[in-house]
Amino acid sequence: MTAGRPPSAPRGRRPGPDSSKQAVLDAARRLFSENGFERTTIRAIASSAAVDPALVHHFFGTKEQLFRASLELPFDPSEVFLTLDDHRGAEGVALVRGVLAVWREPAVREQFTAMLRAAVTHEHARTALRDLLTSQVLGLLADRMDDEDAPLRAALVGSQMAGLALTRLIMELEPLTSADDEVLVAAIGPTVQRYLTGDLHPTA
Amino acid sequence: MTAGRPPSAPRGRRPGPDSSKQAVLDAARRLFSENGFERTTIRAIASSAAVDPALVHHFFGTKEQLFRASLELPFDPSEVFLTLDDHRGAEGVALVRGVLAVWREPAVREQFTAMLRAAVTHEHARTALRDLLTSQVLGLLADRMDDEDAPLRAALVGSQMAGLALTRLIMELEPLTSADDEVLVAAIGPTVQRYLTGDLHPTA
Repeated sequence: MTAGRPPSAPRGRRPGPDSSKQAVLDAARRLFSENGFERTTIRAIASSAAVDPALVHHFFGTKEQLFRASLELPFDPSEVFLTLDDHRGAEGVALVRGVLAVWREPAVREQFTAMLRAAVTHEHARTALRDLLTSQVLGLLADRMDDEDAPLRAALVGSQMAGLALTRLIMELEPLTSADDEVLVAAIGPTVQRYLTGDLHPTA
Repeated sequence: MTAGRPPSAPRGRRPGPDSSKQAVLDAARRLFSENGFERTTIRAIASSAAVDPALVHHFFGTKEQLFRASLELPFDPSEVFLTLDDHRGAEGVALVRGVLAVWREPAVREQFTAMLRAAVTHEHARTALRDLLTSQVLGLLADRMDDEDAPLRAALVGSQMAGLALTRLIMELEPLTSADDEVLVAAIGPTVQRYLTGDLHPTA
């Protein structure tokens, strides 16, 4: 990533502030994933990024603020949601298929499960991931619906997909872990469809 | 709990092996819940149970073995499943209502979320909880079905209910956390019904 560096910057010189900042973020992401929030220190992140700890504080503030800055979804949910427009009436199947495809990438799967793990165990991570999910995933999904139940609908979809991640990817519960994607698309797609567009208040 | 003590045991004397064993289990459960598997030591458990660490090893073996022994569901799933017989055709609604009622007990909710947390973060806990869920919850549910898809059906129910626990109880994702039980029963009951008895292989 050289996006922030001026095109005329000479090569081989001491890295500028943008690449130091990026190196800190990369190190933070890796160490938070590997060791969790609590056991990761600013000092270890600084050392891994080959910068002074004071510079980390200068860039990002506290460890919690650095954690928040380092959180980023390992995929772009709007890409998955965009495909829903092409599948009117079958959005549920399309959404489950899109999410399962995203999980097939080992790097994405790893970062996603690390985020879930952190969120389950650490208060800071929980708040940060909840804000991220709400603003960048479930909020986007709810915005697509013109419905007073939109936030509930999006959260229900979130509950099923988070539960699938928990059982299939993290707990490795069979037969979900070995199941072919299309078996899960057929089984879970109609659930997501109902949460998105169906009757949530049946009087049975 | 004095179940294991002979009825004629004199009061006020040094506790016998059964109550020491129970004290170790109680301490283990509490400390594993509070501090997680990794940060809990045999020494701390022994100290909390007022016994010698050697006795803990003598009773339970390694820390992992003690962890497995200390795992127990904070509720009896067969009680929830038994009520399903009274609700033929509406088992999904009955199951969701039963699980939500179980979660309303603060002590049960706390132990259940502690188990989920441990399972997400620690390999030992993950294997142990998966075995427990498979044998004592999802296995029981699958045994009730006369269907080649029974294990998949039970695991799908598990994925939705685990996801609801994760979002409602642990991540405290709104509007799921504040939602009345009956809102969730109406929204999620039909999902569970379909997983239990519906068509899992629609060709759409």
